Amino acid sequence: MPKKIVVALGGNAIATKDGSAESQIASIKQTAEVLAQFVKAGDHLVVTHGNGPQVGNLLLQMTAGQSAGNPPMPLDTVGAMTQGSIGYWLQKSLSEVFARENIKKTTATVVTQTIVAQDDEAFQKPSKPIGPFYSQKQAELEKKAYPDYVFVEDAGRGYRRVVASPRPLSIQESPLISLMVEKGMVPIASGGGGIPVIQNDDGSLTGVEAVIDKDFSAAKLAENIGADELIILTAVDYAYINYGQPSQKKLGEVTVHEMMKYIEQGQFAAGSMLPKIQAANDFVSNTNGQAVITSLKNVSHLIAGRSGTVIIN
Amino acid sequence: MPKKIVVALGGNAIATKDGSAESQIASIKQTAEVLAQFVKAGDHLVVTHGNGPQVGNLLLQMTAGQSAGNPPMPLDTVGAMTQGSIGYWLQKSLSEVFARENIKKTTATVVTQTIVAQDDEAFQKPSKPIGPFYSQKQAELEKKAYPDYVFVEDAGRGYRRVVASPRPLSIQESPLISLMVEKGMVPIASGGGGIPVIQNDDGSLTGVEAVIDKDFSAAKLAENIGADELIILTAVDYAYINYGQPSQKKLGEVTVHEMMKYIEQGQFAAGSMLPKIQAANDFVSNTNGQAVITSLKNVSHLIAGRSGTVIIN
Repeated sequence: MPKKIVVALGGNAIATKDGSAESQIASIKQTAEVLAQFVKAGDHLVVTHGNGPQVGNLLLQMTAGQSAGNPPMPLDTVGAMTQGSIGYWLQKSLSEVFARENIKKTTATVVTQTIVAQDDEAFQKPSKPIGPFYSQKQAELEKKAYPDYVFVEDAGRGYRRVVASPRPLSIQESPLISLMVEKGMVPIASGGGGIPVIQNDDGSLTGVEAVIDKDFSAAKLAENIGADELIILTAVDYAYINYGQPSQKKLGEVTVHEMMKYIEQGQFAAGSMLPKIQAANDFVSNTNGQAVITSLKNVSHLIAGRSGTVIIN
Repeated sequence: MPKKIVVALGGNAIATKDGSAESQIASIKQTAEVLAQFVKAGDHLVVTHGNGPQVGNLLLQMTAGQSAGNPPMPLDTVGAMTQGSIGYWLQKSLSEVFARENIKKTTATVVTQTIVAQDDEAFQKPSKPIGPFYSQKQAELEKKAYPDYVFVEDAGRGYRRVVASPRPLSIQESPLISLMVEKGMVPIASGGGGIPVIQNDDGSLTGVEAVIDKDFSAAKLAENIGADELIILTAVDYAYINYGQPSQKKLGEVTVHEMMKYIEQGQFAAGSMLPKIQAANDFVSNTNGQAVITSLKNVSHLIAGRSGTVIIN
């Protein structure tokens, strides 16, 4: 039976030192070669990805290059823009591998909105830095122009805007993404965690200035479409406990319950491995599926047999 | 029987004097109210739109705000970005109207690629100006950095890059768009004419630096998905012959054959009404459908009975 797999690509699957389209596309082409292995193995694939560096670069250009009548776009719109660009790069690169390997699949990008709760406590303590660094004076001017913005000083490097990072409740476009999988397509969706929106009483959606962790939204997408497996690709082949100590131990198959204990012990770095473990746990707890955390270069081992850190119920 | 309608939104349905997201979204909200009338009338709707002002503004910001390691994006990527942003604005505004009017429909944006011919003669004579104005010196520097770029002097206002505007051969994502219509969704697709790509011998696609007329790509999309009607919304209620003369006459129902004669007579302005008439003619000639050219504000009359310029076989 083919498995339905959601793969979440980490920053290193796209971004390069150089922010040019050319070098990012070159990086994505290599990623597409790896992703195609899942399809060749007969599995159904949904691809999701981060957009942090791309949003950052675009905000820098928009801020520095703005003029009267041509102001920077708000964060939800910038998120939608990078879903368009990165999605286009991915669909083009995947279609190249599919053509070369004679894989009869098509791929397409869906602009995705992620519903968050208006009363998510993250909105009370925005913590995710975005966009350019400002001097104190510039930050005060920005604050005057946009009274809702929150700025914090960042380790002596200047002031930066911070936004909330609420948890995803559901993926608005998941019925379409399910349908595409059913028809044998490879959807690219929920890029950058999806555009954060809140759902009004009448069912309509309003965009909010926030950033959703792409691993949490990948887990929610996997849950919403009934995926069998969530694969979070990152820089390392395995998650570790006692990381960097003589007793360091890589984690193979681990239950959600064991992971909870490790989390309590503070085994995983906040903002790095911890949210990936939490996202994996969320998916496995809420479904009958399993989650894997491993690296892009370890995917062939993962497909050949069991490899990477596998979280089960 | 419900009709399958492709509506192509003109610039005035989105763009405002002020390029802010806020004012563009306000404009799109009004447009969404009009578009919902088709859905309320029971028809299947596909929405497509232009992106000229948005691509222009983004290129201006990227050019002025670039830095080492954060260069402007190429035109195909910028097109994909504006499909993301404008698509997101449209889907949000449509979902608001649907929620308020209790219309049980969903909408989503598909990043769309439009296949053009590598040997399209348009590539021999690029004519569509894009991006910022340059001094002669700046234009020479740009030309040195990007030898493929073509610059022309623009009526004393400086130098501008021009790109080709090839004709669309087919819309790559039309099977998905058809599927969405079949499932009762309202797809937003082929924004800005779609991202221009050429199809390689192995079937893979390569992005090209070009701009596709959004009315021609709307006509091709309508043809590819078997639409009954193509509606091109523009600033005027009707197309006219002898425009601005005492003998001026508005066109109601007109056959393709009659339109061909008017085109030969030079009745329609190049770069304005002419490509709309040609796109309408293309669709009607290639299908059993009809095409309408009218204004956004005339849509209620169009739905109530026959209004606008209607092109039939």
